[in-house]
Amino acid sequence: MAESQNKRDLAYARTKINFDVKDMTNFLHGGEANVEQRRYIIDLIAKDPVFNKDDWGWLNHTDAVKRGIAMSTRLAEIKMEHDLNDLDFATMMEAIDDTLPIVLHNGAFIPVITSQGTEEQIEKWIPPAEKYQIIGCYAQTELGHGSNLSQLETTATLVKETDEWEINSTSFTAAKWWIGGLGALCTHAVVQARIFIEGKDYGAHVFVVPLRSLDDHKPFPGIEIGDIGPKAYNGFNKMDNGFARFNKYRIPRENMLMRFSKVSKEGVYTKPPHAKLAYGSMVLLRSVLIKQMALYLSRAVTVSTRYLTVRRQFNNPTSRNDSDLNPGLETQVINYPMVQNRLFPMIAQSYALFAAGAVMMDMYIGLMTGLSSGNIGALAEVHAMSSALKSYCTTFAVAGVEESRKLMGGHGFSYFTGIAHLFASTVPSNTYEGDNYVLTQQMARYLLKEVKTARTNPDQVTPYSKYLLLGLNKSAFARSTCSVALPEDWLSPAVQLAAFEHRCARLAYELSDAVEQGGLDTANPKTWSDHNIECYRISHAHAQYVMVLWFIQAVRDASNPETDVERRAEPASIKVLERLSNLHALHTIQTNLVDFVEDGYFSPAQCQSLRAQVKNIVASLADEAVGLVDAFDHPDFLLNSALGATDGDAYKRLWDKAQSEPLNRREVCDGYEEYIRPLLKKHGEFKL
Amino acid sequence: MAESQNKRDLAYARTKINFDVKDMTNFLHGGEANVEQRRYIIDLIAKDPVFNKDDWGWLNHTDAVKRGIAMSTRLAEIKMEHDLNDLDFATMMEAIDDTLPIVLHNGAFIPVITSQGTEEQIEKWIPPAEKYQIIGCYAQTELGHGSNLSQLETTATLVKETDEWEINSTSFTAAKWWIGGLGALCTHAVVQARIFIEGKDYGAHVFVVPLRSLDDHKPFPGIEIGDIGPKAYNGFNKMDNGFARFNKYRIPRENMLMRFSKVSKEGVYTKPPHAKLAYGSMVLLRSVLIKQMALYLSRAVTVSTRYLTVRRQFNNPTSRNDSDLNPGLETQVINYPMVQNRLFPMIAQSYALFAAGAVMMDMYIGLMTGLSSGNIGALAEVHAMSSALKSYCTTFAVAGVEESRKLMGGHGFSYFTGIAHLFASTVPSNTYEGDNYVLTQQMARYLLKEVKTARTNPDQVTPYSKYLLLGLNKSAFARSTCSVALPEDWLSPAVQLAAFEHRCARLAYELSDAVEQGGLDTANPKTWSDHNIECYRISHAHAQYVMVLWFIQAVRDASNPETDVERRAEPASIKVLERLSNLHALHTIQTNLVDFVEDGYFSPAQCQSLRAQVKNIVASLADEAVGLVDAFDHPDFLLNSALGATDGDAYKRLWDKAQSEPLNRREVCDGYEEYIRPLLKKHGEFKL
Repeated sequence: MAESQNKRDLAYARTKINFDVKDMTNFLHGGEANVEQRRYIIDLIAKDPVFNKDDWGWLNHTDAVKRGIAMSTRLAEIKMEHDLNDLDFATMMEAIDDTLPIVLHNGAFIPVITSQGTEEQIEKWIPPAEKYQIIGCYAQTELGHGSNLSQLETTATLVKETDEWEINSTSFTAAKWWIGGLGALCTHAVVQARIFIEGKDYGAHVFVVPLRSLDDHKPFPGIEIGDIGPKAYNGFNKMDNGFARFNKYRIPRENMLMRFSKVSKEGVYTKPPHAKLAYGSMVLLRSVLIKQMALYLSRAVTVSTRYLTVRRQFNNPTSRNDSDLNPGLETQVINYPMVQNRLFPMIAQSYALFAAGAVMMDMYIGLMTGLSSGNIGALAEVHAMSSALKSYCTTFAVAGVEESRKLMGGHGFSYFTGIAHLFASTVPSNTYEGDNYVLTQQMARYLLKEVKTARTNPDQVTPYSKYLLLGLNKSAFARSTCSVALPEDWLSPAVQLAAFEHRCARLAYELSDAVEQGGLDTANPKTWSDHNIECYRISHAHAQYVMVLWFIQAVRDASNPETDVERRAEPASIKVLERLSNLHALHTIQTNLVDFVEDGYFSPAQCQSLRAQVKNIVASLADEAVGLVDAFDHPDFLLNSALGATDGDAYKRLWDKAQSEPLNRREVCDGYEEYIRPLLKKHGEFKL
Repeated sequence: MAESQNKRDLAYARTKINFDVKDMTNFLHGGEANVEQRRYIIDLIAKDPVFNKDDWGWLNHTDAVKRGIAMSTRLAEIKMEHDLNDLDFATMMEAIDDTLPIVLHNGAFIPVITSQGTEEQIEKWIPPAEKYQIIGCYAQTELGHGSNLSQLETTATLVKETDEWEINSTSFTAAKWWIGGLGALCTHAVVQARIFIEGKDYGAHVFVVPLRSLDDHKPFPGIEIGDIGPKAYNGFNKMDNGFARFNKYRIPRENMLMRFSKVSKEGVYTKPPHAKLAYGSMVLLRSVLIKQMALYLSRAVTVSTRYLTVRRQFNNPTSRNDSDLNPGLETQVINYPMVQNRLFPMIAQSYALFAAGAVMMDMYIGLMTGLSSGNIGALAEVHAMSSALKSYCTTFAVAGVEESRKLMGGHGFSYFTGIAHLFASTVPSNTYEGDNYVLTQQMARYLLKEVKTARTNPDQVTPYSKYLLLGLNKSAFARSTCSVALPEDWLSPAVQLAAFEHRCARLAYELSDAVEQGGLDTANPKTWSDHNIECYRISHAHAQYVMVLWFIQAVRDASNPETDVERRAEPASIKVLERLSNLHALHTIQTNLVDFVEDGYFSPAQCQSLRAQVKNIVASLADEAVGLVDAFDHPDFLLNSALGATDGDAYKRLWDKAQSEPLNRREVCDGYEEYIRPLLKKHGEFKL
């Protein structure tokens, strides 16, 4: 029966796996307790009808926002009912699989007040916010302005007479724009505005601003407010990204958050003690993004790995074939080496992202522990690292989501893959929380400082920049070459790391030299902006280096009896993890090969043997692929994919989904009498 | 006034252009008459209210298909009213900017009958089809099967008794799937089905199949038919991609198209004289795609170039700045070198695509002229060329559309850029008409044959494969290096072409050697599939080579007084075109640099000077960018972009678009009473 060939193919693939999927799942998610808790939370969402996803493909923005509000309020209720912590809340959002009008209430409104408000302000606003008696959002971006706080056009002018601030949008380009939750749901906003006291500009500060009446939800007089309209690819469709324009709108003076800067009743301004303390929250947002990318990319490759296992196309001989088993059937698409070489490196990248997400979160926690005891030593490095990784990881993970979709060929263009929705929700991560190009300047600036340190105090270079010491002896460095002689030498982590370190060191010193020379060139002086392409290169190179390093370390730790049991794995799993780690390292090198070749570090023969080695490792993973994606443990509710469900029954599900298309409720389409019939009859009737 | 700073910025940029935009437009579109005709046709569509795009962002699939039907029938009427030719029809589709249920009527239904039907069949079906008394689609793909005709599950069994075919879908995976026009609109389909005569399988053949009654549009008994549901990214939203399942459905024997294969009343099957004549239509489809990619990518860069000229962000010094002119304003984003280096190469690629589209279409016409006189000599090369170019061009052009969107940062995620819609309509081109990976095997197979020819009859190698002669002397070839000594040497077309030729020759011989050796390796024999990664590499390398060559030739021809006046340009335009051609060639090299370095053809110093030269050319285009995109001559109706309109008034348009959001018609959102109010009041009222 053709109906179940799909299921048989996937079931058969599962018989070939050479490791215990459950063990791998526990390794990925940090232990069995985490796995259980994640399943419990996802199930909590899955069984609530408001989160049902069956009709999402047909919602327009109007219907979607209403749904988003219904989902938001239910989410708030569940959070209160179950008293869930941040990790569980994140899992709920993962399960819900869409951004909602309420997310910035917990994600920004409460944290900003908590971190920038005084004790009295926290006392006033947080308890009602925790109980959702007020619902807030975070309003920084304006129609004409983004990340550059000093140029915001929204002003807050102190009115001493009434002890108030007058919030004003100086023109329509000053309108707050893109603000999630603002368009329909929120009663309050935390608003960034430049303060003016007696004509003097003191720069941007933060205010709690009531937006809508708690009696009837109508916007207060003096505020023009609304939704900014639909987004690219139907992304963020349930989100009421909104605008607000203030016309001399008054709020009490105490609504300015005054933990750091203060303004007294008399108009006296007091500066904050330390300007960079707000960096912590940006580090958190970026660190969380790394972990999310692991979840997103792994979802996409789960769908495509399963579908490509059951999809058959053409009768081509491939070295891995099931024609004995299934004579007459076409070749499983996953057996084509081209497909494996596109897909399996993304599986390896997903595993590397799980490792990187965990390390980055540890770094963040370490930073916060330090900061709380007044130690800001780690701030610069962790800030740079989170910036570099955010830029690199969101770039390749989102591209990987789309690549997974395209791997599925024709059916990949159906909404029912579930992957198009995922891409639409994740692609803005490339441009928000710091544009991925602009952001790379952070790591470049940091490394330029480290280059100076390497030259002056080499023992003070931080561990992740130690590679800079390689470049101190310029002539020796220029002569250094990769040690690989035999193909299997590529499988040595030391060889891999040495290659990445060499490349990072070279790019860092080249940037440093160019910056120094550019300043000296008085005829044609270079600005910092002239070096931004090189900043991008070194930042991504550094991110790739630490990603490779962290994955290698995670696999090493997994077999170390001294490691916490949650991060350990069985020998059969380790064997596959080592192959994934090798693939991740070598494929990353291959994708950026010119960086390793153009200064002679790799020889032509090494390039050839590297490519061959990548192909070998890819081929060696063919029997494990389905197990490796099963191990991500993404339930069908989360995948929401006709093509990638656990049982593999892709065609049956596509068929069933098509039957649910609302157009098919009518035998003759809407528009026949009005449009089609007049055209067909225009030149008289045709007789069959 | 902030309201008009946007417009002022774009107007000022236009004062800096150093060539005549109108002259460039005429060069791009092949002469003034073409430009005028294109404008006339676009205007015809623009002024018809059914093609208005204002509410597209809010249509769900149900509403969109109804709109698609209304647009389809109006399109048919306009075509008949104005008796438009194929080129004008293509321009109408460009202006309409979406695929419609009716497009395969003219795009496939009529051409297939015309090319594969007998005189009688053409006489019977084409006149009513031309008058839209019947409307048809093309049904090949099935739920479980794609391009592999020999494995289609739809059967047509000859029933001699009644002189009929019985069309049958052997299981639900045999259902025709994805068929545009099938879901709602069409009365007929051309159906691919495998014929069985007295139990014997004669392979796939083509049938005209009536689907819906001409009286009431109801599907005929025996046909289960419907829409397959929404597509990725809301793409093809107005298209009724449909399914059809046949249950022993009978049609007359004469409905099989019998120009080539024939089946008599007695059940005698006659084979076609030549199996490959159908390739012509595939070549046409792929050649048209190249030209479309020129129009699409140029639209995307038009929008982002204009928006990035008016968008200002941060106050960073850049070498090109307007701070004297506009003190206090932020830096225009387009002045950042990083942005220029991402954007301007795509402008150059757009120009190269215009040139390639024209050459490819000439090749197609040459091929058809040859075929009509029985000369199939050019078929293999043109087929391979159109495959290689389709794969390469649709890959980079669609990626460029998305890159243009991301270049615009935050606002780039708005639906109102117009670019998201463009990406959603164009991205399936990567997987249809031959998947971009699978398709590259065509060029690889062709070049392998040419390698053999080079070795045996070197004077018979076709002009585009002449580079293979370079590799005949293996040791000399291995020692050859790039001749560049000074930075300006990179600007020589001969140097550029030599580099591409060297790379293609190397990759072709490497593939040839690997295929030969793989066959000899009896312990571990290689299948063709094992070489597909290398097929992809050489096919894209060859496509890049001819793209570079054709653009160089087009610019050369433009200054040649012997060239037709339509393809000539003024000296000021030529000067800029030469820079674009250099940028296109050198940026393509830079993007694939490892291919030129790994065998020692480029030295480390050459890599450095190449990168520097690319940056130089990019910087030299800064004053021309707005003129270069204006020259594409895309009217605002076509762009449908708040950010990229001709006058540059981006913020005003975004503001106005937001005001048209249907959610904003209500002061309090739908869902307040039902969801929000109960949540806010759950723990008692909060008093401000």
